[in-house]
Amino acid sequence: MKLPGKIAIMGGGSWATAIAKIVLAQDDSINWYMRRDDRIADFKRLGHNPAYLTGVKFDVKRINFSSNINDIVKDSDTLIFVTPSPYLKVHLKKLKTKLKDKFIITAIKGIVPDENLIVSEYLAQEYGVPEENIAALGGPCHAEEVALERLSYLTIACPDKDKARILARKLASQYIKTSVSDDVAGIEYGSVLKNVYAIAAGICSGLKYGDNFQAVLISNAVQEMNRFLNTVYPINRSIDDSAYLGDLLVTAYSNFSRNRTFGTMIGRGYSVKSAQIEMEMIAEGYYGTKCIKEINKHYHVNMPILDAVYNILYERISPAIEIKLLTDSFR
Amino acid sequence: MKLPGKIAIMGGGSWATAIAKIVLAQDDSINWYMRRDDRIADFKRLGHNPAYLTGVKFDVKRINFSSNINDIVKDSDTLIFVTPSPYLKVHLKKLKTKLKDKFIITAIKGIVPDENLIVSEYLAQEYGVPEENIAALGGPCHAEEVALERLSYLTIACPDKDKARILARKLASQYIKTSVSDDVAGIEYGSVLKNVYAIAAGICSGLKYGDNFQAVLISNAVQEMNRFLNTVYPINRSIDDSAYLGDLLVTAYSNFSRNRTFGTMIGRGYSVKSAQIEMEMIAEGYYGTKCIKEINKHYHVNMPILDAVYNILYERISPAIEIKLLTDSFR
Repeated sequence: MKLPGKIAIMGGGSWATAIAKIVLAQDDSINWYMRRDDRIADFKRLGHNPAYLTGVKFDVKRINFSSNINDIVKDSDTLIFVTPSPYLKVHLKKLKTKLKDKFIITAIKGIVPDENLIVSEYLAQEYGVPEENIAALGGPCHAEEVALERLSYLTIACPDKDKARILARKLASQYIKTSVSDDVAGIEYGSVLKNVYAIAAGICSGLKYGDNFQAVLISNAVQEMNRFLNTVYPINRSIDDSAYLGDLLVTAYSNFSRNRTFGTMIGRGYSVKSAQIEMEMIAEGYYGTKCIKEINKHYHVNMPILDAVYNILYERISPAIEIKLLTDSFR
Repeated sequence: MKLPGKIAIMGGGSWATAIAKIVLAQDDSINWYMRRDDRIADFKRLGHNPAYLTGVKFDVKRINFSSNINDIVKDSDTLIFVTPSPYLKVHLKKLKTKLKDKFIITAIKGIVPDENLIVSEYLAQEYGVPEENIAALGGPCHAEEVALERLSYLTIACPDKDKARILARKLASQYIKTSVSDDVAGIEYGSVLKNVYAIAAGICSGLKYGDNFQAVLISNAVQEMNRFLNTVYPINRSIDDSAYLGDLLVTAYSNFSRNRTFGTMIGRGYSVKSAQIEMEMIAEGYYGTKCIKEINKHYHVNMPILDAVYNILYERISPAIEIKLLTDSFR
């Protein structure tokens, strides 16, 4: 097995596009799986992704595009999965090629629907990929800032830290600094939870809570994240590392965050459905909230913020009431 | 000794004004020491502080103003000190009344100049106030949001937790939630350090570092704060509590923070002097940086962010160079 060998980007969104840019800073060429042939055609014609990060120019001669997932997987050694989590299973169902001989990096910030598994667990259980050949890629990293080549930090987690180091070197560049970790599950769960908390931050903003309260909310959120991670996957980690706290901060404090924007609309009184129609998309944290709520039924971690967001989004309880209750649990 | 008994506000700035509002939510009357008689006259005439939080109306019949510190101290049981730290000694020098029979709350976010002592240490050492009669008041709490009655959280720290609880009840109201702690020194040092880190955040913003990097900076800052507090005053604390992390967040992420604004100007190329002239004031973190640097000479805690800010502000090293070096120490 070659590591990283030939790298494939699996997905066509903004984070996928940013990662393609990062990989092409070192590699001569990449494979790139995108679902839609019309998008691929437009990409080749325009020299940039027609829908995301349109300011990032690519030398399309260095990219082997395909909408056939089997062609791409067959021809690649390392697959970087970066589709929205709700669509992962749809893509994988088309697979006839084995995944278990590949090295897989998940950059998906979500949980596999119906399964209530993080992506690394799902790939190990369903596709027999050995754990030491699965890595997770953690932020804090807005794709938009990678596009602008603003200094950003990535954490690559893999149980085999030597492999993490090889990948860390591969992804590093003038504007990307990388570090390694062995906390795959923690980084994956953290990146799901931060979207839940960004929705909470948005809801509070929509309800006109101020900066003082937001700071208290985020402080309580990182403690809640720590409680959950330490219960579900107890290893020695510092929750204040940038892969956890930093990722939460960049999402919860950013007005560009879709999850925060979604929350703000909910806080202002939009229904879930009308917020989704207005945004023309679904914030990943919407699904993440339900998945973590399900998972936590086994663990019973005290998670008042998650519970409040769940009650607001799925039980139609008034945001004003839920957040008011939440304020009493904070300190 | 009555606790809190008659409360006096010692200082006339925006945080002093916010605290006066908070106390008057429960108490019929307060004493209020302000240095300038003209300000007191204007306050009485206008019904609000003429210079700070001018939107907050006071019933001036409930306030006993005086520019004579001895009259105020003599007539009060609990003194809430909330002057800028550089002027504390000047005020105290006028004292002929003993402080050691009073209960003292410090809401000063700074270190006593020349002494390199936090306020609680200084009052204990110089004025013989017993430690169990000194409390510290911690945020996160922008005065501007207290003025708007936006929900905010305060932490009251005192070695005697029963006393902290009495004060916590006294300061609580519909829009102020309070909790207690015994970490006086930790909360005081934390509130000094957060201003240093807000300057750092401003410098990076002025240098056009983006949100991804700011999140990494703040994550590293809270870890640096934790290292310092655990060395200087090792007690069992969670640095992610709102009194530490939350206070850092509200300062470092706010465009209203004077310290952040000062840093932004430095990052854009202003000299310290021209930034101070432009702002018509001095950011407290400017002094805090020097004081903590001095104090850390005894402790040798690894504090790359403090060192970088110190080098920029006091050694005239280029912000671009210092921050570039700093980026290599982060992860």
